[in-house]
Amino acid sequence: MKALMEYTTEQLNEFEAAAQKKYDEFVAQGISLNMARGKPASEQLDIYDNMLNEHFKEIGFKSEDGTDCRNYGILYGIEECRKLFGEILGVDWKNVIACGSSSLNLMFDFIAQGMYKGFAGCEPWVCNKNRKFIAVVPGYDRHFGIAQYFGFELINVPMTDKGPDMDLVEELIKNPDVKGMFCVPKYSNPDGITYSDETVIRLASMKPVAKDFRVIYDNAYIVHDVYEEGDELLNIFDEAKKYGNEDNFVTFTSTSKITYAGAGVSAMAASDRNFKEISDRLTLQIISYDKMNQLRHAYFYKTVDDVKEQMKKHAAILRPKFETVLRILSEELGELGVAKWNEPRGGYFISLDVTTGSAKYVGELCKKAGVTLTGVGATYPYEIDPEDKNIRLAPSCPTVPELEIATEIICLAVKLAACKEIREGK
Amino acid sequence: MKALMEYTTEQLNEFEAAAQKKYDEFVAQGISLNMARGKPASEQLDIYDNMLNEHFKEIGFKSEDGTDCRNYGILYGIEECRKLFGEILGVDWKNVIACGSSSLNLMFDFIAQGMYKGFAGCEPWVCNKNRKFIAVVPGYDRHFGIAQYFGFELINVPMTDKGPDMDLVEELIKNPDVKGMFCVPKYSNPDGITYSDETVIRLASMKPVAKDFRVIYDNAYIVHDVYEEGDELLNIFDEAKKYGNEDNFVTFTSTSKITYAGAGVSAMAASDRNFKEISDRLTLQIISYDKMNQLRHAYFYKTVDDVKEQMKKHAAILRPKFETVLRILSEELGELGVAKWNEPRGGYFISLDVTTGSAKYVGELCKKAGVTLTGVGATYPYEIDPEDKNIRLAPSCPTVPELEIATEIICLAVKLAACKEIREGK
Repeated sequence: MKALMEYTTEQLNEFEAAAQKKYDEFVAQGISLNMARGKPASEQLDIYDNMLNEHFKEIGFKSEDGTDCRNYGILYGIEECRKLFGEILGVDWKNVIACGSSSLNLMFDFIAQGMYKGFAGCEPWVCNKNRKFIAVVPGYDRHFGIAQYFGFELINVPMTDKGPDMDLVEELIKNPDVKGMFCVPKYSNPDGITYSDETVIRLASMKPVAKDFRVIYDNAYIVHDVYEEGDELLNIFDEAKKYGNEDNFVTFTSTSKITYAGAGVSAMAASDRNFKEISDRLTLQIISYDKMNQLRHAYFYKTVDDVKEQMKKHAAILRPKFETVLRILSEELGELGVAKWNEPRGGYFISLDVTTGSAKYVGELCKKAGVTLTGVGATYPYEIDPEDKNIRLAPSCPTVPELEIATEIICLAVKLAACKEIREGK
Repeated sequence: MKALMEYTTEQLNEFEAAAQKKYDEFVAQGISLNMARGKPASEQLDIYDNMLNEHFKEIGFKSEDGTDCRNYGILYGIEECRKLFGEILGVDWKNVIACGSSSLNLMFDFIAQGMYKGFAGCEPWVCNKNRKFIAVVPGYDRHFGIAQYFGFELINVPMTDKGPDMDLVEELIKNPDVKGMFCVPKYSNPDGITYSDETVIRLASMKPVAKDFRVIYDNAYIVHDVYEEGDELLNIFDEAKKYGNEDNFVTFTSTSKITYAGAGVSAMAASDRNFKEISDRLTLQIISYDKMNQLRHAYFYKTVDDVKEQMKKHAAILRPKFETVLRILSEELGELGVAKWNEPRGGYFISLDVTTGSAKYVGELCKKAGVTLTGVGATYPYEIDPEDKNIRLAPSCPTVPELEIATEIICLAVKLAACKEIREGK
């Protein structure tokens, strides 16, 4: 197999005709497969069927400190949950708040607080008409959506194989209107890249001009290794302390992709100062979070090791899915020189870059053949991928046979789009 | 027993000495009882031990429409929950959103939205430095706390036995800076008063000058009758529609005092316009609420009649508690003319008015004797009860024997405070 560019017109026609034929066969089958969102598969959720109640009565619905979890109280969450998340995040549990079922909700509320109250004694963000947020691209559409909702101008910073382009970030934070950035430091969404030590250290040592600059450090995939040896991520809080910068970071995580998606427990960890400012709000926002669900989780997971042991079962389910997609991508597109993709060691996504200007067309072809992808462009603010080349693949939910068909269709779409590009170029 | 005012000094001294002696005996006992918050009692929570999982597996964790509730999806909550709350609130279920565990959180977020976004195309509330909110007093401290957190000036409107003083409300809404009010229309907190039909109709027909005026209609006790015949509350949405005013109201409720306090399901209902503005936020704030908990509730309660049937069990637990407090209040303070209280037919509280200027002192005496009451003054904004006379009693959590002791101590404190008042007056 040689690069498609080197094909003679005749070869290209043949190649295209073959691809078109196969593609049409799939279209004829009326397939409907969804690779749009990072949803866990049912088989993964089955693992927790016994988490729910078995032990509730014997422990009298009480947390370790004797609190009846069926009743009000304990704003910061039950101690055992705070300790568990403290271990997961590598933070003192006293700086952790165990909350409800959604970490996205926590991030939204944190930014909302910046909007109407402001941080570190600075004016509310809403008062700054030029407020800006750094968007590492490609990135998580829901992060961008929050910043857009709150009227931030989003500034793209490209992702590298070591994390965000830090030269650019260090330049941007000289602007007092730049109020923060989103980071998914481990198994980034969608690239599956884990920030290098150097990147974490450069983030930790940043001295933004804006005293109310905050990094929304979304550690959604912190224990989500797909292989035995997962990536290692340097502890941002330990590093930030060395530079007196711990107030620049608030970290978020949840068990949505550990136990139940949307019905797990979320948590945030923050420096003493940020913790105080957050809890001044929480005191008025809620009486207490769902401690029953926290109790379920704390009973199921005594320590972070229990979580890691459990996550191996996830890996066993996810690995063949990732490998199916990656195998077919390399078999079908290997040396054609029309697509690039990463091979993540964890997380929930594979990021596929196709020839510039053809991602949307690939998406259309896939849709026509019954394969739903994350909206092409969604990995960029305002859903505008300047090069129209990035596609996020979410292999977690479909079965392996479904993934085989879906990935074949994706590859065919990439081939057809590439042929079109080349022909129009010639 | 005659009015204390009519006692001769000698009689008063005798009376006071007797009260002081009994009071000292209680102090000596080192009692510790809490009547501060409207927390359900364990016996009430026990009712739901079987709600949790029994049926989960047989229904495969699926909602009626086949959605796997262990996974993401369905932003507005599962249909069966929306329908249940629709029945409870008397609203079309399509205007209902079933959410997480806290309705207070929903109210906070709604007001936050007014702060940073604004409603009905008006400027964000944060931009109005003179923003005001109406506080019906005595009222719920957490409502006032939210408005204060967001920098609203709170304007007191006294509660009458028919609801808020509507003459005053109708006057205040002529001010464009008055952006809303909190209402607990059924079994109000703390008075236990249900708004009369006239009050509901006058609320429904209000034409506030501020287009973004919103009533936070907190229907926390809508099915919380303590007696067979509970109070009847006119449906605010039906009435408001008659005047084209349905956008003035957003109603909130939860099962916190139906199933688990802080671990139930909350809901809000809003007009099409408000629903749209709220869901524009929700779409970005969260992926989906905890459908597992919604499923538990929907399975346990098929219809509003199931809820009402269940609430009779609550009434059986709460009635003797209310009656114990009310009996002792009338036995001890009956004709002394030094205290007034209401006799609610539902809800969670009894509101006690003592002689002007002595509520704080009564609170201190109770505390010294080991009885914790809701912070005296907390039923008013800024914790300032202008007449220092209102005390909120929460009889739901202590046992009947505990309530007997607590109420005796409260009565003794009221007597001692009254004697002090009278002596200093003489």
